[in-house]
Amino acid sequence: MPQDVYQHTFANGLTLLAEPMPHVRSAALNFLMPAGAVYDPPDRLGAAAVLSDLITRGAGQRDSRELTLAMDNLGLDSSESVGSIHMRFWGATVARNLPAALEIYADILLRPHLPEDELDAVRSLALQDIRGLEDEPRSKVLVELRKRHYPTPLGYDHRGTAEGVAALTIEDLRERHRRLFRPGGAILSVAGNFEWVPLRDQVARLFGGWEGDAPPPPPPGSRGEKRGHVAKDLAQTQIAAAYASVPVGDPDYYAAMGAVHVLSGGMSARLFTEVREKRALCYSVWASYQTFKDRASVLCYAGTTNERAQETLDVLLRELRRLPEGIEAEEVERVQAGLKSSLIMQQESTSARALAMASDWYNLGRVRSFDEIQAAVNDLSPQSILAHVRRLPPADFTIVTLGPKALEAN
Amino acid sequence: MPQDVYQHTFANGLTLLAEPMPHVRSAALNFLMPAGAVYDPPDRLGAAAVLSDLITRGAGQRDSRELTLAMDNLGLDSSESVGSIHMRFWGATVARNLPAALEIYADILLRPHLPEDELDAVRSLALQDIRGLEDEPRSKVLVELRKRHYPTPLGYDHRGTAEGVAALTIEDLRERHRRLFRPGGAILSVAGNFEWVPLRDQVARLFGGWEGDAPPPPPPGSRGEKRGHVAKDLAQTQIAAAYASVPVGDPDYYAAMGAVHVLSGGMSARLFTEVREKRALCYSVWASYQTFKDRASVLCYAGTTNERAQETLDVLLRELRRLPEGIEAEEVERVQAGLKSSLIMQQESTSARALAMASDWYNLGRVRSFDEIQAAVNDLSPQSILAHVRRLPPADFTIVTLGPKALEAN
Repeated sequence: MPQDVYQHTFANGLTLLAEPMPHVRSAALNFLMPAGAVYDPPDRLGAAAVLSDLITRGAGQRDSRELTLAMDNLGLDSSESVGSIHMRFWGATVARNLPAALEIYADILLRPHLPEDELDAVRSLALQDIRGLEDEPRSKVLVELRKRHYPTPLGYDHRGTAEGVAALTIEDLRERHRRLFRPGGAILSVAGNFEWVPLRDQVARLFGGWEGDAPPPPPPGSRGEKRGHVAKDLAQTQIAAAYASVPVGDPDYYAAMGAVHVLSGGMSARLFTEVREKRALCYSVWASYQTFKDRASVLCYAGTTNERAQETLDVLLRELRRLPEGIEAEEVERVQAGLKSSLIMQQESTSARALAMASDWYNLGRVRSFDEIQAAVNDLSPQSILAHVRRLPPADFTIVTLGPKALEAN
Repeated sequence: MPQDVYQHTFANGLTLLAEPMPHVRSAALNFLMPAGAVYDPPDRLGAAAVLSDLITRGAGQRDSRELTLAMDNLGLDSSESVGSIHMRFWGATVARNLPAALEIYADILLRPHLPEDELDAVRSLALQDIRGLEDEPRSKVLVELRKRHYPTPLGYDHRGTAEGVAALTIEDLRERHRRLFRPGGAILSVAGNFEWVPLRDQVARLFGGWEGDAPPPPPPGSRGEKRGHVAKDLAQTQIAAAYASVPVGDPDYYAAMGAVHVLSGGMSARLFTEVREKRALCYSVWASYQTFKDRASVLCYAGTTNERAQETLDVLLRELRRLPEGIEAEEVERVQAGLKSSLIMQQESTSARALAMASDWYNLGRVRSFDEIQAAVNDLSPQSILAHVRRLPPADFTIVTLGPKALEAN
């Protein structure tokens, strides 16, 4: 069941990763373009978001409407999304339509029209997305957390700012496309029912004439305040916290994942038990690992009543801080069971496999095999996790709250 | 690739549905218990929600903590959720843990402790869920729409009310469990890597001694006002609308699905094109089909700026009303491509298959095959969809808005 992964880096720098899954009838593809929000100029925040919408409004021989029709005719489920480093193009459909879908993506990535007469409409939608965030306190508190926790430009919200979006010109966007949509640094991953050789040959034909390298992301700048409160008259208080972890390539990586799962890997995990089950402080509480190539963090969230918000934050921080005091063998067994179960389920999804391959390639320069990950999970122990959280104890938290009243965080 | 589905209804009324998927290594199970929100007494709204949390706090030989540990030890990804008709228990894990997971679910469903000393904690969480809805305008507007559009008790929000949750006693919940958790009316569906005969035998052993029938849902009562506005000082206005459709067993069912997909089945569908692409009125706009056994509706949503909310509602209603004017052949081809593509992807997910089997059994008393659905989708035509929307034109809308200003809906 664990499949072979094919890999080919073309002369122009584009890397193709492919995992044939002969027992399925679908295929998923995933392009990572080095064109995420970190490349937004400080006075044009939101350029990536606007480009990710405008780029599908006509490409190659097709105008905006024709392009949309062509994608829907393939039964293509697709999305374009903006991450910090990458702009991501994802699509999934029946396997026999994969070649036609790739033809369309070649147009979108290499030959978009970026029509000036649609810019105002796209800009208006982007401004709405920014405004809509004000009505979504759960998302808002995490946006504010990342803004403060990461150095610029890593902490940018992909939505950008109203000023940045308003200032964008069509030339900004066209220049951005010319500069960043380059094969050097681009990754295409495909998982599903297809043959490797015809796929590779088609990708060579479609993307072989593409040239150039995207520039590296801008270097990290300064970061925000460690403490933040956004005052808002809400029924609940939103709490978000972050602290440093190790990136996916680090020797401690699996131990770091293990530690996060001790906190938040199931119903019996510490945060759920202490915050929700024992104290009924909130419905939703979690910790989640987020990695970049050179740094990683653990992000934590809880949404609770205004009255019990201080207690929720106190319990959350106490659980984080007491990780280095000890890890039980039974906790590690449950973490292993959960990680193995989700690993197996990931193997059965074409979309999950396509994304995992591309992430591995970007972060590690290779794709980890199922056996490698499983072996590393099997090797987890109370000792290995404890050694990690003692080397890098949860501390030095960035904490952001959103609600009627600021909290004390010590 | 389309699999055989096994079905067995035990003497006590429990139906087991099973789809072996030999190429996967996971398994998903899904219990539908006739214990949804419609069974909540009018002065105890929220009983289903509270029971769905309390029921996992100890069962059989295990107390609350031991039960949680046992589930996490299996790497079980699980959830309990409350729908209108059913309470749903879903779990997925590696296939070899399926028998152990079933043992645990037999305890939860048949022998829950329903501990009185945890009721206050569970109640407190349920109250938080009700309050939290006030900070989630997107969810809130749809809750308000269903409340007005469906007759009681079908329109009940699964969260219940603060008064109902506050009034609940442990005896209410124990009586509710005794009355509703009965094999007559219960459906267990399993999809993944397992053998049919051992599964059937295990289910017979675990659930064979269970007895009784759940009562039918209470008959429909009165419905709310067709127009509603919830005044709230928000950055955006939320718009929701609903109109009658035909349920899944109706001869018009596939034509009705086709009509919804003409509206909202892809990026080229009418709502996305008219509301988002052409007029940039909002980021998110959709129509979605919702069926019960004896009735169905199309629910529509748009979230937009306060300034352009009236225009958004006008365009939305115009698109709904003009469906009977004509359907293009190309639109139907795209709908077919989209439906076939999602049908194939559903076949590849153990969780999606488990849920689809159970839904079919409840609604139709049988499980539709892949070939049957595909043939019905292939048979769609402009004529068949047009005939349906002329027999049952979108009209008589329930419309709810949430935001600073009420809108005109004619």
